[in-house]
Amino acid sequence: MNYLFTNIIGSFVFDETLKQIDVIPFRSAEDYRQKASAEAKLSLKYPHLRPVPKDKEAQALAFFHDQKYFSEFHHKNLSVTKQAIKASVNEDQLIIQTIVNMTELDKISNSLVKRLREWYALYCPEPTELIESHEQFVQLVLEESKEKILSQLNITETMGADLDKKHVEEMLRLAGEVKNLYALRAQYEQYLTAVMQEYCPNIMELAGVTIGARLLELARSLKHLALLPASTIQLFGAEKALFRHITTGARSPKYGVIIGHPLIQKAKRDEKGKAARCLADKLSLCARLDYFKGEFKAPQYKKELEEKFR
Amino acid sequence: MNYLFTNIIGSFVFDETLKQIDVIPFRSAEDYRQKASAEAKLSLKYPHLRPVPKDKEAQALAFFHDQKYFSEFHHKNLSVTKQAIKASVNEDQLIIQTIVNMTELDKISNSLVKRLREWYALYCPEPTELIESHEQFVQLVLEESKEKILSQLNITETMGADLDKKHVEEMLRLAGEVKNLYALRAQYEQYLTAVMQEYCPNIMELAGVTIGARLLELARSLKHLALLPASTIQLFGAEKALFRHITTGARSPKYGVIIGHPLIQKAKRDEKGKAARCLADKLSLCARLDYFKGEFKAPQYKKELEEKFR
Repeated sequence: MNYLFTNIIGSFVFDETLKQIDVIPFRSAEDYRQKASAEAKLSLKYPHLRPVPKDKEAQALAFFHDQKYFSEFHHKNLSVTKQAIKASVNEDQLIIQTIVNMTELDKISNSLVKRLREWYALYCPEPTELIESHEQFVQLVLEESKEKILSQLNITETMGADLDKKHVEEMLRLAGEVKNLYALRAQYEQYLTAVMQEYCPNIMELAGVTIGARLLELARSLKHLALLPASTIQLFGAEKALFRHITTGARSPKYGVIIGHPLIQKAKRDEKGKAARCLADKLSLCARLDYFKGEFKAPQYKKELEEKFR
Repeated sequence: MNYLFTNIIGSFVFDETLKQIDVIPFRSAEDYRQKASAEAKLSLKYPHLRPVPKDKEAQALAFFHDQKYFSEFHHKNLSVTKQAIKASVNEDQLIIQTIVNMTELDKISNSLVKRLREWYALYCPEPTELIESHEQFVQLVLEESKEKILSQLNITETMGADLDKKHVEEMLRLAGEVKNLYALRAQYEQYLTAVMQEYCPNIMELAGVTIGARLLELARSLKHLALLPASTIQLFGAEKALFRHITTGARSPKYGVIIGHPLIQKAKRDEKGKAARCLADKLSLCARLDYFKGEFKAPQYKKELEEKFR
């Protein structure tokens, strides 16, 4: 009777007194992953091979309590862990990184436009006041001269100083940078769309790219999102309001990040809560379809919801 | 006997009963600025012209309490105010805007590099750990392939996933954007140097561009900086510590933004306070020289200080 014992450094064969009589060492983490084949080989060689029984396990482990194995254990363990980390990267993380970057880029371009508005106001303060949209403001500053801007806005007398070209050029440089940031954000939205269309087409179709990615970010993975109840999806991103509801009895929130969804935006005021509930229901189904590689049913859900809340 | 009364709509001549007998109207804010010439003209025409005496002023003002003047007052006032705002823009504001932008750009590129490090770590985590300098990290990621980076860092087994080129490209896009932000920041430093060399050469020479501009930002103008005592300049930027000192009796701060100055950086530990005091002294002199368009004495001060605290 022989015993078989496999760990990360190799597949060992012991006799009944737990002396080593054979071994197939694993050279790499890859060998360890293929341990079944090593075990099969040994089983052929030693017909009466059994796993080490429970009561002898401690004894078998004591065998490896030998300095000569320590460094090997150390390196093999590191290697196996590194492989595991490497294998753990998937679309979830790429999507989450991208949506977090997009949020960061939004924040950054906002703060830079605010700085640009203040700076440019020394030269020409009127558009800062009159043009609300940040993107429009940046576009206008970049494309038109001060005179043209003023005549477009019907301003006859500006409060802006007549600055040298060299000062204005620096302001335009900042505007150009903001434009680049807008373009980068648009590029990431496109990239995210492509990744999500492949990875979670149903969520992508029903929730849209930004809301879909935000849901994945909040759930941390598609798997987790698929396992969540619809009510959690409905309130994702409204945690603060939810806990305020629980602790102080304030009104419960009706929706979290899905508030930006056109279906809820367009729903009548007294139907918004209902729309959010139904949407979250379908989103939960979509997450399951995507995680378990099911059919592409989102367009059908979308149509149903649109008919219900038109 | 005739009375002369000038306001933003014109120069008026009244008789003794305060009836209008003549007027030179002001067409623009420019005319109003040149009011002395209008008054001189009227004085030639009416030899016995005097200003309205104190006791008749109320009566003279009542003359303008007429609806027909209201809209003119409104428009002229607006125009004069706009001109004053226009004229108030000077180098102080340009310098302050630029240094604030540079601070903002530092903050922004830092937060983007942190995002990049996290994102890129999915693909190749080792440089994120091993390369501390943000700029060096961005440079490396942009210029070298994953294989080259790993061999440069002597990494044989990476924990990074083998990602498709399309994913890596998006990471590099972010790195490129950060590089642009670094370049923009460098450009602004250059621009700021040029502006300050002309506007406040002494401060620029002794404090350096960043600290000099920060001092101007904190003082809000060169004029105000020139009027401040040296001790305030010494502690500019350390307000929090100063008020903690005053209210709780904690140790008083020794320096504010000037802490970054090479003189204080290089001074011996027990001489740092003294160095800060002497530096602030000279900076205060520099501010006065610059504001009152004095000589260029900063190099001499600098030499003195360097000899004192070598």
